[in-house]
Amino acid sequence: MKVLILGGDGFLGWPTAMHLSSCGHEVTVIDNYFRRTASAEIGAPQLYATPKLNERVVAWAAKSGKDIKVFEGDVTDYKFFLDVFKKVVPDTVVHYAEQPSAPYSMANYEQARFTLNNNLTGTLNLAYAVREVNPECHIVKLGTMGEYGTPDIDIEEGFIDIEHKGRKGRFLFPRQAGSLYHTTKIQDTDLLYFYVRAWGLRVTDLMQGPVYGLFTDEMDDDENLFTCFSYDETFGTALNRFVVQAVAGIPLTVYGAGGQTRGYLNIKDTMQCIRLAVDNPLDEGGLRVFNQFTETFSVNDLADRVVRAGKMLSLDVQVQSVENPRVEAEEHYYNPALSALPDLGLEPNLLTDDVLARILETVMKYKSNIHAESILPKTKWK
Amino acid sequence: MKVLILGGDGFLGWPTAMHLSSCGHEVTVIDNYFRRTASAEIGAPQLYATPKLNERVVAWAAKSGKDIKVFEGDVTDYKFFLDVFKKVVPDTVVHYAEQPSAPYSMANYEQARFTLNNNLTGTLNLAYAVREVNPECHIVKLGTMGEYGTPDIDIEEGFIDIEHKGRKGRFLFPRQAGSLYHTTKIQDTDLLYFYVRAWGLRVTDLMQGPVYGLFTDEMDDDENLFTCFSYDETFGTALNRFVVQAVAGIPLTVYGAGGQTRGYLNIKDTMQCIRLAVDNPLDEGGLRVFNQFTETFSVNDLADRVVRAGKMLSLDVQVQSVENPRVEAEEHYYNPALSALPDLGLEPNLLTDDVLARILETVMKYKSNIHAESILPKTKWK
Repeated sequence: MKVLILGGDGFLGWPTAMHLSSCGHEVTVIDNYFRRTASAEIGAPQLYATPKLNERVVAWAAKSGKDIKVFEGDVTDYKFFLDVFKKVVPDTVVHYAEQPSAPYSMANYEQARFTLNNNLTGTLNLAYAVREVNPECHIVKLGTMGEYGTPDIDIEEGFIDIEHKGRKGRFLFPRQAGSLYHTTKIQDTDLLYFYVRAWGLRVTDLMQGPVYGLFTDEMDDDENLFTCFSYDETFGTALNRFVVQAVAGIPLTVYGAGGQTRGYLNIKDTMQCIRLAVDNPLDEGGLRVFNQFTETFSVNDLADRVVRAGKMLSLDVQVQSVENPRVEAEEHYYNPALSALPDLGLEPNLLTDDVLARILETVMKYKSNIHAESILPKTKWK
Repeated sequence: MKVLILGGDGFLGWPTAMHLSSCGHEVTVIDNYFRRTASAEIGAPQLYATPKLNERVVAWAAKSGKDIKVFEGDVTDYKFFLDVFKKVVPDTVVHYAEQPSAPYSMANYEQARFTLNNNLTGTLNLAYAVREVNPECHIVKLGTMGEYGTPDIDIEEGFIDIEHKGRKGRFLFPRQAGSLYHTTKIQDTDLLYFYVRAWGLRVTDLMQGPVYGLFTDEMDDDENLFTCFSYDETFGTALNRFVVQAVAGIPLTVYGAGGQTRGYLNIKDTMQCIRLAVDNPLDEGGLRVFNQFTETFSVNDLADRVVRAGKMLSLDVQVQSVENPRVEAEEHYYNPALSALPDLGLEPNLLTDDVLARILETVMKYKSNIHAESILPKTKWK
């Protein structure tokens, strides 16, 4: 299958490119290096340097004997994007090309505007290119569990049947997110869902939880194949930030009461989920929504586990509650459904102490690279 | 009260400016003349010429003795917009500055992209300017009943209580619209609702149905105070287009089966609704949603009424079903709630045969201006 990955240089984009390539798909990636540029601009160093795409694909070809094609450019530039689309004529597009950070989207006007325009224009361009070049192309769009927020009712997988005053209807599960970034992911779903109904596009929306870990099977121990590892307040994900704090000897920063509960997954399971979505396209026009996580944890749960795994490595990990920079419920009901991806064959890599210890050990190798000052939250929602 | 109207040159913007000015508010308007430019570009003439804002406000001052301030510019230009906002420091903003045509948003890529970026960037700029200059400012945003689509359950006013698996929650009423334009109005609600929760903004979202008519009390018979009257497929609203067809002797074009039902209102009632929203601001941060229409009609109902009113004026009005250029249900359940605005004092001007005959008579005066070829639908959804 010909697969085009938008945002193929990112934390998940590059591992996905290798994984789908390794599974026998013909993979092409697009990236404009936004993540690298933005990290540099806001002074958020990564744990180690990673090569750019032209070097990555050489390293991957040397290891696997397989080619990944690269186009450097911006998916919001429709002329460029349509040109790539016509050259590739993909059967499937995996759409990672959005600004993915909640704090980035909340820091100031310019970053808010960039997030809104980038995330929605890229998605619009994708809808139009698919319609123009290959209307049967399967769009696999990354969404986020954060779109649902923390409602008092069970979270279903994308849709809900509502009985109201004696009548029934089926609707997108109501969404209310906790940041502008997350709100743009509600908006891009609305956008694609509209074109699904109007034009018959085929869309899988993956409502992914925060991802932890850094290794996938395709990397082995080849540093040239590693994915980027952010631990700053802007681009670092919750558990990965805790791991870096544990290694650096900084207390883990729990925002507020720490009861904030989310569905998490290992980066290896993201690979499985994407592959399962790609290998099981929709037979006809429609929007299909999968919740994509393996376990739910509160922030306090995560901190406890890092403390415990730290002990295995003789790290004395402290935990500190800090004022919550976000506007969010710190204690809440949370019961999201999870059945579509397991039904397709997802076999979870759960967060055991051993898994966590392995991540800690890896980060310890790069301890001298850690810039402690980029970890603490500076971006306040209010 | 100091009221800033975004899109103050438009079909509703200009009458709103006069109405709120006449009620004693200090009114300032912003417009970039998008509607005039776009009408010219797509070759969609209006029924009669209307003066631009600098002449309109002179005519208004001569009639009323009241000043309306004008700023020509684009609300998506944040520097310009913030500058105006700081000069005015409005207590209330009425936000009409969106691209308002469904066919325009569906015609081609460029117009789709413009609609998406214009409508969301303008709304983002509004949220940021309010936060920076006057966080207690009341935002009155025009939404559309079209955001709800045509669900099989009763449409509530903005929010719905859902009982699901033994638990309860209150959510934005689920929305799925029938065009990109309408989808951007879902998205701008999501955007403002997010900033309501994060920053405590005060927002009234008016879910308005299609507006008919052309006169408001402030115009009398002064042509210099008339609002623009579009009858083309892009910017003309359903009933106003039928009136022009009736006068021009062209069969009324009913799209498909004609059972499409919507909530309609007279432009005079739009004035009342806006005034009621402006005069009853929220006491604290929150999102308030009002459904804004007075009666529901199917397209066939409207056609029948135009035929009947035409007879009063000896017009022989024909009706013709044409292939529906849109993707929409042509027969459906439709039962929207309507209580908030009547509770505040809305006294509807209903669509009687006399009202319709008066509109027909007015249009007859301009019969020689009608360009028949701009009425028929050319923009197809698929």
